[in-house]
Amino acid sequence: MAFSLRRLILGSPLPTWRALHERLPKVLALPVFASDAMSSVAYATEEIVIALSAAGALALYHVIPVTIAIVLLLAIVVTSYRQTIYAYPSGGGSYIVAHENLGVVPGLTAASALLIDYTLTVSVSVAAGVAAIISAVPAWEPYRVFMCLGFIALVAIANLRGLRESGLLFAVPAYAFIVSFLVMIVAGAVKALGHAAPPSHVAPLHVTEQLGFFLILRAFAGGCSAMTGTEAISNGIPAFRPPQSKNAAQTLVMMAVVLGTFFIGISCLAQYLHITYSPTETVVSQIAAWTFGRNWFYFAIQIVTMVILVLAAETSFAGFPRLASILAQDRFMPRQLANIGDRLVFSNGIVALWVLSSLLIIIFHGSVHLLIPLYAIGVFLSFTLSQAGMVVHTLRRKERGWRHVVAISTIGAITTAAVAVVQAVAKFTHGAGIVIVLIPIMVWIFLKINRHYRTFASQLRLPSGEPPAAPEVRNTVLVFVPGIHRGIIPALQYAKSLSPDCRAVYIETEPEGTPLIEERWEKWGQGLPLVVLESPYRSMIQPILKYLDDVKEERVRHIVTVVIPEFVPLKFWHKVLHNQSGILLKFALLFKRDIVVTNIRYYLEE
Amino acid sequence: MAFSLRRLILGSPLPTWRALHERLPKVLALPVFASDAMSSVAYATEEIVIALSAAGALALYHVIPVTIAIVLLLAIVVTSYRQTIYAYPSGGGSYIVAHENLGVVPGLTAASALLIDYTLTVSVSVAAGVAAIISAVPAWEPYRVFMCLGFIALVAIANLRGLRESGLLFAVPAYAFIVSFLVMIVAGAVKALGHAAPPSHVAPLHVTEQLGFFLILRAFAGGCSAMTGTEAISNGIPAFRPPQSKNAAQTLVMMAVVLGTFFIGISCLAQYLHITYSPTETVVSQIAAWTFGRNWFYFAIQIVTMVILVLAAETSFAGFPRLASILAQDRFMPRQLANIGDRLVFSNGIVALWVLSSLLIIIFHGSVHLLIPLYAIGVFLSFTLSQAGMVVHTLRRKERGWRHVVAISTIGAITTAAVAVVQAVAKFTHGAGIVIVLIPIMVWIFLKINRHYRTFASQLRLPSGEPPAAPEVRNTVLVFVPGIHRGIIPALQYAKSLSPDCRAVYIETEPEGTPLIEERWEKWGQGLPLVVLESPYRSMIQPILKYLDDVKEERVRHIVTVVIPEFVPLKFWHKVLHNQSGILLKFALLFKRDIVVTNIRYYLEE
Repeated sequence: MAFSLRRLILGSPLPTWRALHERLPKVLALPVFASDAMSSVAYATEEIVIALSAAGALALYHVIPVTIAIVLLLAIVVTSYRQTIYAYPSGGGSYIVAHENLGVVPGLTAASALLIDYTLTVSVSVAAGVAAIISAVPAWEPYRVFMCLGFIALVAIANLRGLRESGLLFAVPAYAFIVSFLVMIVAGAVKALGHAAPPSHVAPLHVTEQLGFFLILRAFAGGCSAMTGTEAISNGIPAFRPPQSKNAAQTLVMMAVVLGTFFIGISCLAQYLHITYSPTETVVSQIAAWTFGRNWFYFAIQIVTMVILVLAAETSFAGFPRLASILAQDRFMPRQLANIGDRLVFSNGIVALWVLSSLLIIIFHGSVHLLIPLYAIGVFLSFTLSQAGMVVHTLRRKERGWRHVVAISTIGAITTAAVAVVQAVAKFTHGAGIVIVLIPIMVWIFLKINRHYRTFASQLRLPSGEPPAAPEVRNTVLVFVPGIHRGIIPALQYAKSLSPDCRAVYIETEPEGTPLIEERWEKWGQGLPLVVLESPYRSMIQPILKYLDDVKEERVRHIVTVVIPEFVPLKFWHKVLHNQSGILLKFALLFKRDIVVTNIRYYLEE
Repeated sequence: MAFSLRRLILGSPLPTWRALHERLPKVLALPVFASDAMSSVAYATEEIVIALSAAGALALYHVIPVTIAIVLLLAIVVTSYRQTIYAYPSGGGSYIVAHENLGVVPGLTAASALLIDYTLTVSVSVAAGVAAIISAVPAWEPYRVFMCLGFIALVAIANLRGLRESGLLFAVPAYAFIVSFLVMIVAGAVKALGHAAPPSHVAPLHVTEQLGFFLILRAFAGGCSAMTGTEAISNGIPAFRPPQSKNAAQTLVMMAVVLGTFFIGISCLAQYLHITYSPTETVVSQIAAWTFGRNWFYFAIQIVTMVILVLAAETSFAGFPRLASILAQDRFMPRQLANIGDRLVFSNGIVALWVLSSLLIIIFHGSVHLLIPLYAIGVFLSFTLSQAGMVVHTLRRKERGWRHVVAISTIGAITTAAVAVVQAVAKFTHGAGIVIVLIPIMVWIFLKINRHYRTFASQLRLPSGEPPAAPEVRNTVLVFVPGIHRGIIPALQYAKSLSPDCRAVYIETEPEGTPLIEERWEKWGQGLPLVVLESPYRSMIQPILKYLDDVKEERVRHIVTVVIPEFVPLKFWHKVLHNQSGILLKFALLFKRDIVVTNIRYYLEE
């Protein structure tokens, strides 16, 4: 029944030959690979606003400068990543680039950072998507966490069914998002330039901090969440139509232009409108509401925002299991993560991501703002490692124009490293500290796992040369006899078929019953010898363990097989009604070496 | 290590010959068998006071009449039980008397009632004991539930160690209890007759009900908790010195006199002092505090009360496992309850009682008053059945004086039946309803269990006459080969030793790897044939299940043994790093009939 339910939800198994690749034209690749990055404009401005709000309304005049600084950073990173795309046309994720050029530990550091970020992308994106919906329908606030978990489950199940990152699935909502946000920003700008007054009743701010360098840094660190997802294109180059690198690089630039434009546009409007943080309404919702009023277009923008954020989560559901499977193939993660399920997807990785991102939602009550501080540090760590890897890669080869590449990658690496440090310092106590502790722990675990697989493989390796002549194996068989009844007959017959060296063992807890047992054994014992073991303390286990030691001493080169008869009752609850001495014996023998335990089942029909 | 801890707490195992019987003189039998009954004066008056309080201060003038009615009832029951003692000198528990004379269902009804009451005796007595301590030291109130659970654990572990109901253990606290309560009642009476004024600041009562017949009934029902434990002596006759029945009957009367006297004494003082219910101080504590002030003797009384109540719990810890083992021997309860543990006690019954009574404490927050309504109905049900059984017993034999016995037993049966009905009606919604529903459910389960054991035994019975010639059993062996490596060699060798009809099975999930597998098999396969099963959906289980069906069709009279190689890693966590296809296969084969599964372990050393 469990199997049928699984089929109903996940679909029938797919044969291996169905694993095909889809090649995307740029117009479809942009939606597939840029949704994650573009969707972050839904929350990035808000993070800047929240940080600055602490210093009062005047501090909000820094929203635009902070935004521009982040867009400049984006330009640097994108320029650097274009080079990676040309250097790794078969896909240059941070793990691969760092591993190849910097070594195992930097590679695993990048991998840990990426796995954390994939998980956070799911949680943050879904939480932000739900925040967009709740901004439109505040009455749904009590269901925030449930809605988040529901959307994650939806995406996870779709992926377990084997949802491909099909161009069409992404194209409609992504272009709807681009068009509607463009309309909103332009309409907002026109309305503002026409000197429409910003809303008069600005909520008074509770000033908790002086505006200073550190506060600006924190605003910058929060706004950097806009840059998450930027690396997606460099992972996905094989999915582009040829010339792959060129198309990918162009798509990357397009993505950066859209993202930068939207980010600046939204931040300008937010600053103009004196928008402050509200726990129940997003900044984007406030802008849209002021621009259009709460009409159908306002609702359309909220829905489109939600859908593109869910697609961003979908991107992680493709990326996390893929990276985990690469790590598993490299023997740094459990090999089950490399198993391809019967729907041709990495089911175990999908389930792991589902569980982890849902846990984050539950722990942080589905709040975007609480999740963000954990987020960006991993992104910038993997940026840094990837670009440092590119520096080494280029220096090793010194192909034409290498000086130019090294210069750009070095600038990129230094800038992103600095930002990573800023992230760590500015938000250490807000959650970034967790990630800083977690990454080395993950690296350590990966190395431990790798060590185990290597010693495991070396122990299982067959010697070279011809196999040695196998010594003949002899088998001594003991049958555990709990009493003389019909249920032991199959066990006795089976034991006799295994070996001529075969005896039955009976535990005597009540000596007065033994003569009757021996008398009945004469008749029903199939000619096997019966060994009666005394058990003055009424234990069913200790006497057998002791006798087994004796037998093994006596029969040095033999394998000892213990045959245990087992009843299979018709109804499951009947099991609790019987002394489970057979099960206890089996459990005790689990810890004895070089003993083979075999259950012979006897089926009850009533 | 778990074993050592067990030894430390429970002691070393005891050999079977250590099971001896102790014969008690009356002076020691009274403490052992009467503690349960006598201790109930610690809470019985309080239950009357609580019920009457609902109708205001004036209603409390009914405490004495209600008490006297209950003592009269006690006299009737004791008179009737004296006859049972003579009729069943080997122990006449309600289950035995009802089962023998009225039939299976009445017997099981009495047994259910008794088991429920044993459990409640533990919970109520320990809760009342803790209430006595908290009356003296109110600061411990927050630890009420913890203290209750601690005392239950103490008594349970003492019983698991094999505590006997030794006369000396009970004698000191029981006689200390009798003496100190006698002193308190006499001193209180003297002080009252000397016209010492009752305490002036009587707490005002919140009147919630009119004083009426139903309220009096409820007070009566609550006060009947004084009679719990009365049947203990009739269960324990074999432990008395001869002439057993006579000594037991005399002890029973002594117990009733002590109990009746104390009950009336405490109720008189409670009424004279206008004592009302307090959730933090017991009635006995209020009386003792008024009589002596809070001096050392007051504290001594509280401690003695606590100790005798814990002894009452101990009585149940002897009774419950004994009754459960009798029911198990009669095949109405799981036979594990009849197992004698290595400390010569019915360990499983003790653990069951421990768990159940602790659960009751947790559910009812250790409150005596909340537990009592569940309590008395079972007591009176078992009284009724036992005395009805005595009527039938006597009518069947018609020995000398049978008319007299029948008259008394009939009066006893009718009276206690009436009280049981009163209990059910007066406290149905306060918890008695649960017991009324529970008892038939328990009887139904007992009957189901009995039916299972009977069909089980009939299926296992060996036919009479000479055993038929056993057909020779042939064995076809399949070895599951997950890959060609050192770990499969022991499995192949073992398989070869089992049968000449032996083949290896390999599941092909990636067809391109198969030629290499076959080539390596040539060299390492020990000459066994290798069967390659295609698995286009990458399942490791389905192809084998299908192939097994084929083999079984082909080899009709053979047993099929599936040998599964299994790695045993050095560290437990290593297990999660490996594909558990062997374990999955084993699990899948659990549900296939007539297949024997054998694991051959391969131990990793690093």
